[in-house]
Amino acid sequence: MPRKHQSEDSILRKIADSARPWKDGTGRSVTLGIGDDAALFRPKPGYETILTCDWFLEGTHFSRERHPPDAVGWKCVARAISDIAAMGGAPCCFLLSLALPESHTGRWLDVFFGGLRRASRKFRCALAGGDTTRQDEILINVTVVGEVRAGSAALRSGARTGDILFVSGRLGGAELGLRLLKRDHKPPTLRNSVVRKHLYPEPRLALGQWLVKNGLASAMMDLSDGLSSDLPRLCAASRVGVILAESKIPRLQMTDVAFKHVRDPLQFALHGGDDYELLFTVPPRKVKRLPKTFQGVSLTAIGKITRRRELLVLDESGETTQLMPCGWDPFRKKL
Amino acid sequence: MPRKHQSEDSILRKIADSARPWKDGTGRSVTLGIGDDAALFRPKPGYETILTCDWFLEGTHFSRERHPPDAVGWKCVARAISDIAAMGGAPCCFLLSLALPESHTGRWLDVFFGGLRRASRKFRCALAGGDTTRQDEILINVTVVGEVRAGSAALRSGARTGDILFVSGRLGGAELGLRLLKRDHKPPTLRNSVVRKHLYPEPRLALGQWLVKNGLASAMMDLSDGLSSDLPRLCAASRVGVILAESKIPRLQMTDVAFKHVRDPLQFALHGGDDYELLFTVPPRKVKRLPKTFQGVSLTAIGKITRRRELLVLDESGETTQLMPCGWDPFRKKL
Repeated sequence: MPRKHQSEDSILRKIADSARPWKDGTGRSVTLGIGDDAALFRPKPGYETILTCDWFLEGTHFSRERHPPDAVGWKCVARAISDIAAMGGAPCCFLLSLALPESHTGRWLDVFFGGLRRASRKFRCALAGGDTTRQDEILINVTVVGEVRAGSAALRSGARTGDILFVSGRLGGAELGLRLLKRDHKPPTLRNSVVRKHLYPEPRLALGQWLVKNGLASAMMDLSDGLSSDLPRLCAASRVGVILAESKIPRLQMTDVAFKHVRDPLQFALHGGDDYELLFTVPPRKVKRLPKTFQGVSLTAIGKITRRRELLVLDESGETTQLMPCGWDPFRKKL
Repeated sequence: MPRKHQSEDSILRKIADSARPWKDGTGRSVTLGIGDDAALFRPKPGYETILTCDWFLEGTHFSRERHPPDAVGWKCVARAISDIAAMGGAPCCFLLSLALPESHTGRWLDVFFGGLRRASRKFRCALAGGDTTRQDEILINVTVVGEVRAGSAALRSGARTGDILFVSGRLGGAELGLRLLKRDHKPPTLRNSVVRKHLYPEPRLALGQWLVKNGLASAMMDLSDGLSSDLPRLCAASRVGVILAESKIPRLQMTDVAFKHVRDPLQFALHGGDDYELLFTVPPRKVKRLPKTFQGVSLTAIGKITRRRELLVLDESGETTQLMPCGWDPFRKKL
């Protein structure tokens, strides 16, 4: 039974318990965490601070019934950290804003903090503070603070004509995972890799940092809304166009469990959201320095940047069509 | 009429318009703002970064009908900046997370940004980025990034036995302003100073910075939930108690408009929220260096820090009673 009259202070104490510093020294840069008006963070000399925030809302981004609280805790942190990966940076700490119904301040909250704490340790990103309040729906907002050597961050705006467009991993898996989750009325099967990819995304931190350290990515972003929605943003920021080779786009394969539910893997790869893979451009002279895989994750050339500001898809018969943004847009559709 | 199919990108463009850098150089430390995966902030050498986030939710913190969108825009920024004031720091930039119904993406949003932009200029705190999504209720979360010379931030935990407890301004005004706003069914009268204090709070930035620069405050926090709820947090963090002199607590005066609605100004001063005044302790030997007013704002000694960890109120007849936390707690009451 939910306890009555749970106070804000008692929830803040649970948050404080999740914010204990770790023995490995992660979070050392946070000199003051939970329990004051604000957190204090000591920036590393010569580095810039990366700041990003992300909504994670019941009804829009997850469902109370279908998403295990442990996955909600993991994913709200992991997806915000993915923006740090997209700049080639390292995460340092995060702030958690949490609004909850009183019925969820007991066991749900404990399991949620379990997932959050595992993500926090795995990505070496300490919980530094936050805010909590009561609401009928579960509302989460996460701000992540990262750092990157000053002047070295990979931006969306650096793509140049002739650069080759790459993507990490395979696209469409998280979307299929979501569909399986919505279809099944039983608890999600974590043995299924696409369900796992939807529930427990892993930001490509090591890849992003390696690309930036080696000066390989002229532009970079992470894929959160789907290739067809995110690629136009990279092109607009860089004031360029692109021609995508449809046949090259890495997609779901016949070996994937539940593949029978996917009529056209290309549609999943073009428009599916939540993959958190990296999309980046490499100047042609540097392409040979790029391995085929990085730490087990494939790196695939899928297109070429063009001067003409059009977004085109070249299909297998040699025809080109306009790329239409059909990925995730909260103002178009709900979960 | 609300426009149909407003996309996330078009709302992000409105945000970008509100984030243009200003001619006075405010926001220079933000090297990359809206339009990338994350913002980049260049910290000043020798300074620590202050991080704070604040919910501002329809139904809990404001009402769509009663609060003008201009005030919602101002207040969501101003109240988060108050946490920077409470550390003695200077605000640098902020991230705005905004969830809106589609009906509010037109005029409401424009007027909201008007208030937000005024607060942003007034407090020299640049909009650096954010996230937006669709929701039936208006949800706002603001993260403010500030800075303070390394090691000099005023914390809640520094109060020592014998220190004198001070408060800025007068308490209870914002609570009365809220009550007038809830009672009146006509648009709020901004000529009324308490309504203004509720809608357009002014964080005590200059005072906080002056106290820290002169090494006067041993502990400090801002009053957001009300003296009776916030003071126990300062005492708990410092592991001390306090004795409050009831007669000294600065409260609403007979000259305040609508004073007739206030039966007991002391109750407003003890438990009213949203004043955003500073509560701070000063070692006895430094008290004489404190002026009676700072930039027109009164500074009043209201109590003394004690070793015994009790929170007591000394009334005018010489009796002491326990201080009960009866201020704002979202898990106890709703707007």
